[in-house]
Amino acid sequence: MAADNDFVKEITKKSVDFSAWYVDVVKKAELADYSPMKGMMVIRPYGYEIWELMRDQLDRMFKASGHRNAYFPLLIPESFLKKEAEHVEGFAPEVAWVTMGGGEVLEERLAIRPTSEAIICSMYAKWVKSWRDLPLLINQWANVVRWEKVTRPFLRTTEFLWQEGHTVHASEAEAQEETLKILDIYKTFAEEYMAVPVLSGCKSDSEKFAGAVKTYAIEALMPDGKALQAGTSHNLGQNFAKAFNIRFESRSQQLEYAWQTSWGVSTRLVGALIMAHGDDSGLILPPRLAPIQAVIVPISAGNWQETVLPQARKIFEDLKNKGLRIFLDDRDTYTPGWKYADWEMRGVPVRIEIGPKDIEKQQVVLVNRLNRKKKFIAWTALAEELTRLLEEIQNELFNRAKVLRAENTHFAATFSELKNIMESKRGLIKTGWCGSGDCEAKVKQETSATIRVIQDVPEADLPVCAVCGQKAPHTAVFAKSY
Amino acid sequence: MAADNDFVKEITKKSVDFSAWYVDVVKKAELADYSPMKGMMVIRPYGYEIWELMRDQLDRMFKASGHRNAYFPLLIPESFLKKEAEHVEGFAPEVAWVTMGGGEVLEERLAIRPTSEAIICSMYAKWVKSWRDLPLLINQWANVVRWEKVTRPFLRTTEFLWQEGHTVHASEAEAQEETLKILDIYKTFAEEYMAVPVLSGCKSDSEKFAGAVKTYAIEALMPDGKALQAGTSHNLGQNFAKAFNIRFESRSQQLEYAWQTSWGVSTRLVGALIMAHGDDSGLILPPRLAPIQAVIVPISAGNWQETVLPQARKIFEDLKNKGLRIFLDDRDTYTPGWKYADWEMRGVPVRIEIGPKDIEKQQVVLVNRLNRKKKFIAWTALAEELTRLLEEIQNELFNRAKVLRAENTHFAATFSELKNIMESKRGLIKTGWCGSGDCEAKVKQETSATIRVIQDVPEADLPVCAVCGQKAPHTAVFAKSY
Repeated sequence: MAADNDFVKEITKKSVDFSAWYVDVVKKAELADYSPMKGMMVIRPYGYEIWELMRDQLDRMFKASGHRNAYFPLLIPESFLKKEAEHVEGFAPEVAWVTMGGGEVLEERLAIRPTSEAIICSMYAKWVKSWRDLPLLINQWANVVRWEKVTRPFLRTTEFLWQEGHTVHASEAEAQEETLKILDIYKTFAEEYMAVPVLSGCKSDSEKFAGAVKTYAIEALMPDGKALQAGTSHNLGQNFAKAFNIRFESRSQQLEYAWQTSWGVSTRLVGALIMAHGDDSGLILPPRLAPIQAVIVPISAGNWQETVLPQARKIFEDLKNKGLRIFLDDRDTYTPGWKYADWEMRGVPVRIEIGPKDIEKQQVVLVNRLNRKKKFIAWTALAEELTRLLEEIQNELFNRAKVLRAENTHFAATFSELKNIMESKRGLIKTGWCGSGDCEAKVKQETSATIRVIQDVPEADLPVCAVCGQKAPHTAVFAKSY
Repeated sequence: MAADNDFVKEITKKSVDFSAWYVDVVKKAELADYSPMKGMMVIRPYGYEIWELMRDQLDRMFKASGHRNAYFPLLIPESFLKKEAEHVEGFAPEVAWVTMGGGEVLEERLAIRPTSEAIICSMYAKWVKSWRDLPLLINQWANVVRWEKVTRPFLRTTEFLWQEGHTVHASEAEAQEETLKILDIYKTFAEEYMAVPVLSGCKSDSEKFAGAVKTYAIEALMPDGKALQAGTSHNLGQNFAKAFNIRFESRSQQLEYAWQTSWGVSTRLVGALIMAHGDDSGLILPPRLAPIQAVIVPISAGNWQETVLPQARKIFEDLKNKGLRIFLDDRDTYTPGWKYADWEMRGVPVRIEIGPKDIEKQQVVLVNRLNRKKKFIAWTALAEELTRLLEEIQNELFNRAKVLRAENTHFAATFSELKNIMESKRGLIKTGWCGSGDCEAKVKQETSATIRVIQDVPEADLPVCAVCGQKAPHTAVFAKSY
């Protein structure tokens, strides 16, 4: 039997080496594993359960706002990918190509979808005929492949799982409204479920989706001072409608090109969740997305299997029936101490200890994963107290992340200030920006930071561009990014 | 505005041409559509909603029996596919190959998974070390690609969605128990949710999964007299464990090869559902898998939008809040008659009509999709009566399908009897079978029927093989199949 806490030593401390900590947690908590396919990971059950909780919640939000799911083919003929010029230019370099099928060389090679605009728009051209068919609000949960050179579990992988929404509207204004509505759903999800505060806003032209008119994103600050793009929502204008001939008869009986949006979040969100909240002991999961919200560990002393275990089982059933996600760790091959460390490493928000003395007193011990604080709770009050504690942990994680972001958000009035901050503290740097691609490129070249989002209203104290000194109609948020 | 029932004429009658009816229903009910990718269909929202209901129910059944979901890579290196000799021989001819990625020709070509044993077993070899790691019970919901020559929406498509379970066990007996447990889940799902009676049993060697020791299947009889394989469960023995070196230390500290199973059902089930229950007016969906269990159609007479519509909305909200899946068709661009025919064609089990007279009487009219029988129901009794009617329709569909199967199940004592039946009535033909591949091949060659399942106990009146006259330890169920 392993000595208590032994294996926790196998995890690099988050405070010592963030990158190594991340990979250690992913592997030791059995969230994902490397596969024989370079750049493609296996999502293990515990990691997949987090993704299922994310997916189900997002799915409810999409459906509540009128979207329906569908499924489009995995493979896209090259000629379709080429119809929108910017789109193919952006994606062709990272496509995986199928060139043989059924023992024969194919006449036309087929792209494994890197995103599905090209195949979906070809169907929309058939389905959309009249204003009565609009808006068309469809989402797809699917796998996509982008041939990446440098990969990292969840954060950047050659294959990933995602949802991609594709909508069609009768007017430019409706498409813009949809783009922002989805951005807002993403922000709400990140903050209320993931407990990760995000900035939302527009991207600069150099960072927008290949084929879009405007790209909006939510961006989260990670503890290493880098920003992570956690979701994007694109206003496609009429670009794809013109390339794929999606036209409808308007109320005034004119034949018009339709207006479109597309938007997506991916398994990358799991990576964001891991990075945002973990500590030196391992993972910490926000209760709303924790596959196990509380683990019951019976204290294995004396004849515990006759005395303690039956009551532990009763508590387990009771909490489960109340809709809480509970696990009873009744293994007799590990000590309680080993189990404590193991479940802490796996990020379970609350531990419920119950031993012979607790049976006498008709109580349990609740332990908070964030600070290991203990509380004795009577059986009769357990469900209520546990629910309250889970809510408290959810809020505390969000507050911690907001404090971290506030401490790492800086203002730069000049280019040298910007450079100094980026070389020392990193984080999010707000500056005035004139809007020119040259100034943006200069920052990227000299600091490797990019504009994560643009905020339209300039900060009062940033009236000029930090790079060129010209008038600044925008505030740009610069950061290094994943 | 379209004249009432006009579009229903566009559907071939089921009683006239079953095949044409099937394709018409798939297209007109907007379940699926053909895509630019030959053999690959688009699953439209209404069809996908049926699949979501199936998936969610199966997922609950898998989880209740201890299985957890995970996700493995889409692409499999050719060398991995080749490790199990029978497996690669069975699947290689229908593989789609990726030969280029990221702008370069790949050193080794990659198969798009036709099934995932090869990639999953390579991971299990890493994860399984001790008897403590067993059983390992993992399922995956994923897309797979098999390069098919002749395709048909849902029934046989080059890409399809499915679940594939892959389990590892410490003994042969446990693997066999799992194989049969899953077969039983499939049978329960088909009968209790799809309302489709199925035969379950073992396959002959010629029909078993490439790499399995034994394959079990559920088989449903379709109204055209052909059998449809609706799910398979394989006992893989140690074949893959030996090919991929999956070994574990047993309780007696011996290093042993593990025992495995794999099993799957696919979007083909949607095809089975369509075929099993529809009629000349279109689709009929069993209530437990109907995305819309009842549609409310307000009668648009006079100032209905002020008088009828508010009450229709109230009823809609009330039924929805009780957990029923309800749609309120408040479109003012179609007549009630047109809507009736439209929703009948889409297979909604119950229609709720409400007009000015019903408002006066505080009632609605419930119409049963199976027989168009009408019932006047007071508002106060509606939820209860609707629930009861849905249950009645679910049972009636199952009973109808059982009657159809009974009428089309035949017994053949001799080969000429077997041939006669296959040339005239078709259906399921039970015969004695000696167990030889030669007799099986002879039937296939002369009638194109194959053994769908083998039942171990021979029927009392079929003591000899219908082909060779030798002693028959088995009853074989022959049929033509999809």
